[in-house]
Amino acid sequence: MIKVVVAGFTGEMGQNTVKMVQNTSDFELVGVFAPSAKGKSAADYDLPETTSVYGELQSIDCEADVWIDFTLPDFVYENVKYAIKQGMRPVVGTTGLTAEQITDLNQLIQAKGLGGLIAPNFGMSAVLLMKFAKEAAAYFPDAEIIEMHHPNKKDAPSGTAIKTAEMISQVRHPHTQGAEQEKETLPGSRGGDYEGMKIHSVRLPGYVAHEQVLFGAPGEALTIRQDSFDRQSFMTGVRLAVKEVMNLTELTVGLENIL
Amino acid sequence: MIKVVVAGFTGEMGQNTVKMVQNTSDFELVGVFAPSAKGKSAADYDLPETTSVYGELQSIDCEADVWIDFTLPDFVYENVKYAIKQGMRPVVGTTGLTAEQITDLNQLIQAKGLGGLIAPNFGMSAVLLMKFAKEAAAYFPDAEIIEMHHPNKKDAPSGTAIKTAEMISQVRHPHTQGAEQEKETLPGSRGGDYEGMKIHSVRLPGYVAHEQVLFGAPGEALTIRQDSFDRQSFMTGVRLAVKEVMNLTELTVGLENIL
Amino acid sequence: MIKVVVAGFTGEMGQNTVKMVQNTSDFELVGVFAPSAKGKSAADYDLPETTSVYGELQSIDCEADVWIDFTLPDFVYENVKYAIKQGMRPVVGTTGLTAEQITDLNQLIQAKGLGGLIAPNFGMSAVLLMKFAKEAAAYFPDAEIIEMHHPNKKDAPSGTAIKTAEMISQVRHPHTQGAEQEKETLPGSRGGDYEGMKIHSVRLPGYVAHEQVLFGAPGEALTIRQDSFDRQSFMTGVRLAVKEVMNLTELTVGLENIL
Amino acid sequence: MIKVVVAGFTGEMGQNTVKMVQNTSDFELVGVFAPSAKGKSAADYDLPETTSVYGELQSIDCEADVWIDFTLPDFVYENVKYAIKQGMRPVVGTTGLTAEQITDLNQLIQAKGLGGLIAPNFGMSAVLLMKFAKEAAAYFPDAEIIEMHHPNKKDAPSGTAIKTAEMISQVRHPHTQGAEQEKETLPGSRGGDYEGMKIHSVRLPGYVAHEQVLFGAPGEALTIRQDSFDRQSFMTGVRLAVKEVMNLTELTVGLENIL
Repeated sequence: MIKVVVAGFTGEMGQNTVKMVQNTSDFELVGVFAPSAKGKSAADYDLPETTSVYGELQSIDCEADVWIDFTLPDFVYENVKYAIKQGMRPVVGTTGLTAEQITDLNQLIQAKGLGGLIAPNFGMSAVLLMKFAKEAAAYFPDAEIIEMHHPNKKDAPSGTAIKTAEMISQVRHPHTQGAEQEKETLPGSRGGDYEGMKIHSVRLPGYVAHEQVLFGAPGEALTIRQDSFDRQSFMTGVRLAVKEVMNLTELTVGLENIL
Repeated sequence: MIKVVVAGFTGEMGQNTVKMVQNTSDFELVGVFAPSAKGKSAADYDLPETTSVYGELQSIDCEADVWIDFTLPDFVYENVKYAIKQGMRPVVGTTGLTAEQITDLNQLIQAKGLGGLIAPNFGMSAVLLMKFAKEAAAYFPDAEIIEMHHPNKKDAPSGTAIKTAEMISQVRHPHTQGAEQEKETLPGSRGGDYEGMKIHSVRLPGYVAHEQVLFGAPGEALTIRQDSFDRQSFMTGVRLAVKEVMNLTELTVGLENIL
Repeated sequence: MIKVVVAGFTGEMGQNTVKMVQNTSDFELVGVFAPSAKGKSAADYDLPETTSVYGELQSIDCEADVWIDFTLPDFVYENVKYAIKQGMRPVVGTTGLTAEQITDLNQLIQAKGLGGLIAPNFGMSAVLLMKFAKEAAAYFPDAEIIEMHHPNKKDAPSGTAIKTAEMISQVRHPHTQGAEQEKETLPGSRGGDYEGMKIHSVRLPGYVAHEQVLFGAPGEALTIRQDSFDRQSFMTGVRLAVKEVMNLTELTVGLENIL
Repeated sequence: MIKVVVAGFTGEMGQNTVKMVQNTSDFELVGVFAPSAKGKSAADYDLPETTSVYGELQSIDCEADVWIDFTLPDFVYENVKYAIKQGMRPVVGTTGLTAEQITDLNQLIQAKGLGGLIAPNFGMSAVLLMKFAKEAAAYFPDAEIIEMHHPNKKDAPSGTAIKTAEMISQVRHPHTQGAEQEKETLPGSRGGDYEGMKIHSVRLPGYVAHEQVLFGAPGEALTIRQDSFDRQSFMTGVRLAVKEVMNLTELTVGLENIL
C-alpha cells in the first residue's frame, strides 16, 4: 500500500488526483492539503475520516510515501522541500521550478535516500508518442508532424509538437524533405520547417489536443497518433509516477524517463 | 449492351480501360485505336476477334455507342470530332481541349442529338470528397484541408486541394479561423490560407495521392478522406461515365456533374 | 429574430440549449419551462429579465415562434400539443412519442398552418455521415463500418451504425464481401454481417462516440468519419432545426430530412 | 563499403533488392545468382561490368560480405550453407527453413565467426508497429486491433494481427474488455477475441495491407498504424538487415531482434 498526500487538492487536477488515488487499490489517501481548506474537515470534502485535511503546510504531520503536488508556481518549491524533509517522495505536476531549485531539491532528496519526479506533462499517450517517434525516426528518416487543437490555442505549433521534432532530430540527420524545386502556390501550405521536417498545426472547434507523426518510406507508411480528450487523461501518468517514484534514487525530470 | 471504342488503347490509361470494358458485363469492346497499331491484328494484342484494331482515324468504321479517349493533347480534338460524326458519344480523359474547341464539339454533339463528357479527373473518391465537403461546409463552416502526396510532387497545395477549397468557399462565408492573436513560432505551421481556411501539404515517400477535409464544431468533428493508390482507380469513374453519357444531351465537363 | 421557449431547461440538454439560444444572434430566449422552476424568477437562473420562467405548462403565455422540447417521455406529448395550440413550432429532442401521437400532432400542426421537427439525434456529424455514406454507396458498393464507443456501451453495433447500414442498403445490392473461401481463425474477426456488409464495434476507455464508413474500389478508398466528443455537439443540430422549422409545413421526423 | 551478392535476383523481390543495393552508397553489388542466368552476362541484365553473374551455385567465387537470399524454399538451405562456407553473412527472406536447418546453419555461422539474419517479414513499419504496441500495452492495457486487407485474402485475422496480439499479451494480463453485459445484436460485431482483446478484419478492394492498434484510457487514446502499399516497402528492412548483419555473432531470427 502506497500512502499518498495530495497537495492542491481543491483544484481541477487535484480533484482528479484525489479520485484516482481513491480508485487505485494499492494507494491510500492519507492526507490532502490546500490553503483554502484551513479549518475544514474530511466530511466537508466527502473524504473518508482516515484522510487528514490540512490548510497549512507546517501542520502536515501524517506519515506518507508520496507527495503529489498540483499547487502553484509560487509555492511549489517550499511545498516540495517540506515534503521531502518529512520523508515523502515528490511527484510534481506544478510548473515554475527553476533549474537551481531543481538542483537544490535533488540534493535534498539524495541526502534523504529518496527519489522524486517532476513532469511537465503527465499525458501518457503524448509521452509514448514522442518516445516511439524518436525510435521510428532511426529507421524512417522522413517524417511530418500534424497537431490539432481547439481554436483558442494561440501558439503554433504546440509545445508537444516542437518537443516531438526535437526528439526526432536527435536521431535524424537534418535534410530537406519534398521535391527539390518545390513551389508553394499558397505560402505556408508546406508547413513550418524544423531542420527540413515539416510541422502542420490545425485549429478547429470540437478538437481538444491531438498529434500525429507520419513516417513514409518507399511503399510503406507508419503513423503514430495520440488524442487527449480531457484532463482526466493525466491520471494514467500520475498513477504510474506514484508507483515508479518508489524505485527512483534521485529527482528525475520527465515522465519519459521512467518508462 | 453498350458498344465501346477505346482510343489511345496502348497507353497505361488505355490498357486499364480495355481491361475494364472487357470486365464489365454490359459493355462490349468493339474497337481500339492507336497510330502505333497500324497493320496489327486483335491477336497481336490478345484481344478477341470481335474487336477491330485501327491504326488510322479515318479507317474507323465500326458501329459504337461510346468513344473513350485517352490519346494526346495534340490529337484529341480531331479524334473526338471524328467520333461524334460517326455517331459515338465521347468520354474524354485526354487534356488539352481549349474552351473554343469544347464549344465547337458541344454544338456538333447537340446537332447529332448525342451527349458527351470531358473529365480532367476520373477519380471517383476525389470527386465525391469534394462534393461532400461542399455540402458539409453549409453546416460546419470551420474546415481545414490536409493533402498528402509523394515527395516528387512540385506544387503545393495539390490541384485537388485547391479545387476542394474553391467548392467549400461557394457555401462558406470567408472568415479567419483559429485564435484571434494566433502566433506562429515556426512560420507556415498554420498552413496556406484560402479565405481564412487552412490548407496543409504533406510530402512523404510511400504516399501516393491522398486528401482529408476536417470539419470541427462544438463537441464534434467530421472528416472525409480519400486515397488514390494507383491509376487503376480511375476505372470506377470511367465506367460510370460510359453508362451516364448515354443519358446526356450535351457535352458535360466534370465527373461531379453526372453524380 | 426567432423567439424561442426552451422546455426542460434545467436538464443537461436544456442547459446547453439555453446557452446556445443566448449565443445565437438572431434567436431570442423569451421563455423557459420546467416543473421544478415553479415560483422561481429569471434571476434565480442567471437569465435576463426579458426571459419568462414558467413552472406550469398552462401558465405559459408568452408569444414565441419555436418550442424546443427536452423534457420527459411521459410529458412530451402534452407539452408539444399545448405549444402548438399557442402557435409555436415544436423542435422535439425528447423521445417517447408513439406513431399515433405523431400523427395526431401533425394534424394539429397542419391545421394551425405551422411546421415542426422531431429528431432522435441532433448530432450533425452523424447525420451527415449517414447521408454521405448512402450517396457514396451508389458508386462504391463495397463498404465496411467501424464504430467506436466507450466501454460501458452494452449493445453492439451502435444504433447509428445499424442505421448507416440500413441507409447504405437502400442503394446497394446485397452481396457478400471478402474472399469466397474466407476463413475466420478467430470467430467474429470479420465482424457482424448486414447483407454482406461488415460492421465492427470497438469499445475502449477514452473513446466517446465515433463512426467510420470505409469504401474501397480498385486503386482507391473513401472514408467518412464522425466524432462526437460531448453533448454540446447536439447544439449545431438544434440551432439548424430552429432555423429550418420556420420553413416547414408539416411535422417532419429526422434531422436528415431538413438538410 | 559492404560487398553484396543477391541470390534469386531475377524474381520480384530480387529485382527490388538489386536496385536497392545499387542505390545505397555504402553497398556494392559484387554478384547476382539465379539458375536462369546461366550463360548470361552483366550486360544482359543492365548491370555494371563489376557485377558477376552466376547461374550455378558452385561457380560463385567472388569475395563478398553479405548474401541476400530471395530464392526458393527447396534451395534456400543449400544456398545459405554454401554462402556461409564462402565467408558471407546471410540475410534470408526466403521461407521454408526447418528448425533443424536453422540450428545447423547457426552452428556453421558461429564456427566461421560470422552472423546472419532470417526474417519472415522485412516490413519495417509492421515490425515497428508490433514493437511499439507491446511497449504501449504495459501502460494502456485496453487495446483493439483493426487490420485491413485486399478482398482476396482468405484468412482472418491476418498473421501480423495475430502476432501483434501475441506480443501485446506478453505484457498484458488477460481481461475481458467492454461492458459486462455486452450484447451483440449482430453476431461478430465485437470482433474476434484474443484473451479479451478484440481483433477486427476489414476486407475491401483498393486496400493492400494495413494494421491499426488502438489503445484507450480515461480521457486519452493512442493509435499506431502501418500501411504497406507494395513490396518495394520491404527494401527499408533489407537494407537495415544488411547493415546490422555485419555486427551479429549468430543466426538471428526476426527483424525485430535487430532493432
